[in-house]
Amino acid sequence: MKTTMLKGQVGQVYVARILEGEDLPDAILRRVREGNVKAGFFVVIGSLKRATLGYYKDGKYENVELEGPLEIASGMGNIAVNEEGEPMIHAHIVVSDRKGEAFGGHLMKESPVGATAELVIVESLGLNLVRAQDEKTGLNLLRLD
Amino acid sequence: MKTTMLKGQVGQVYVARILEGEDLPDAILRRVREGNVKAGFFVVIGSLKRATLGYYKDGKYENVELEGPLEIASGMGNIAVNEEGEPMIHAHIVVSDRKGEAFGGHLMKESPVGATAELVIVESLGLNLVRAQDEKTGLNLLRLD
Amino acid sequence: MKTTMLKGQVGQVYVARILEGEDLPDAILRRVREGNVKAGFFVVIGSLKRATLGYYKDGKYENVELEGPLEIASGMGNIAVNEEGEPMIHAHIVVSDRKGEAFGGHLMKESPVGATAELVIVESLGLNLVRAQDEKTGLNLLRLD
Repeated sequence: MKTTMLKGQVGQVYVARILEGEDLPDAILRRVREGNVKAGFFVVIGSLKRATLGYYKDGKYENVELEGPLEIASGMGNIAVNEEGEPMIHAHIVVSDRKGEAFGGHLMKESPVGATAELVIVESLGLNLVRAQDEKTGLNLLRLD
Repeated sequence: MKTTMLKGQVGQVYVARILEGEDLPDAILRRVREGNVKAGFFVVIGSLKRATLGYYKDGKYENVELEGPLEIASGMGNIAVNEEGEPMIHAHIVVSDRKGEAFGGHLMKESPVGATAELVIVESLGLNLVRAQDEKTGLNLLRLD
Repeated sequence: MKTTMLKGQVGQVYVARILEGEDLPDAILRRVREGNVKAGFFVVIGSLKRATLGYYKDGKYENVELEGPLEIASGMGNIAVNEEGEPMIHAHIVVSDRKGEAFGGHLMKESPVGATAELVIVESLGLNLVRAQDEKTGLNLLRLD
């Protein structure tokens, strides 16, 4: 089987508070750019005013829209670059409502932060992690070569 | 826009087993203190006898109480210090029941561990991550300056 | 109280794309072996064709089987070795369906990956993290000594 794994080292760690009203995916990407991070992963917790979750099926994302306030019960993702070297994030979240019921999916725009969100980014160095458009799936997949 | 990001390096990694009956938030904080960790993040999986989840709305937390046994399907959080330099944790979890149904929120006390929970703490060094009471939200927010 | 914590340092970071149809727990373990990782943690997001979630009660796992496609809204776990020194993973996931509804539990075999899954492994060095069968619970628990 063709190897599908890249190897690197840990670089810097960044901790950020995301402010009320910032759109969560944009806010994460802004910090990634501010730190000039090209590869790595992150975790994020906090709250959202509302959430837009993506569900992938048959080559495209459908959106699930949820009214808040919602807790970000789990948020995680990775950082890579596109073929032009610009950073991209891929994030999935689980949110929960007043009854504690949980909903999850791909983190989409139109997910504004509530009182706060707290982000930890762990940079990886020494690996060239590139996303490229995949024809079959329509997704920006991690490149294997 | 004012910068909202601190930069540090990775320090030690700690792996702990949390024992049956320990209250999960207390148990995490105890290991954080034992390792003298002042900043960082953690992930935790395992099971709970029951869970207390917080839902933040209009300046205060409401509690959702769930009977177990429950799986800790996801657990994550960060470590900072208060203004007196004492470590504090902020953790969110997703738990799931016998049908697999998931519930999430802010990890509250009264969440005793079931058979086991397994904690990985990643320390961050070189950043001064402080929480302080915020008047508007009533929360202990990460300080930005 | 007996100490329950091991201390190490961060080693390598591995990023892998898991391919369509690979069984998720096997796929993670294969990369762990490929990197010769003996301790550490990982996060994984992506999608599944279907999921098998374990729920632990009274000394054994019950399975919850879910039809997909499903998003892997959260995936995390740790890496240790058994008493023969062979790597083992312990992973919990949260998956979500077309309505965004979330389900969680212990990641079991029979959880084949959909379009993609993206795995980040963070190796820990300098700690001897061993799992051994525990008579009382029937689980492979992290050894404390």
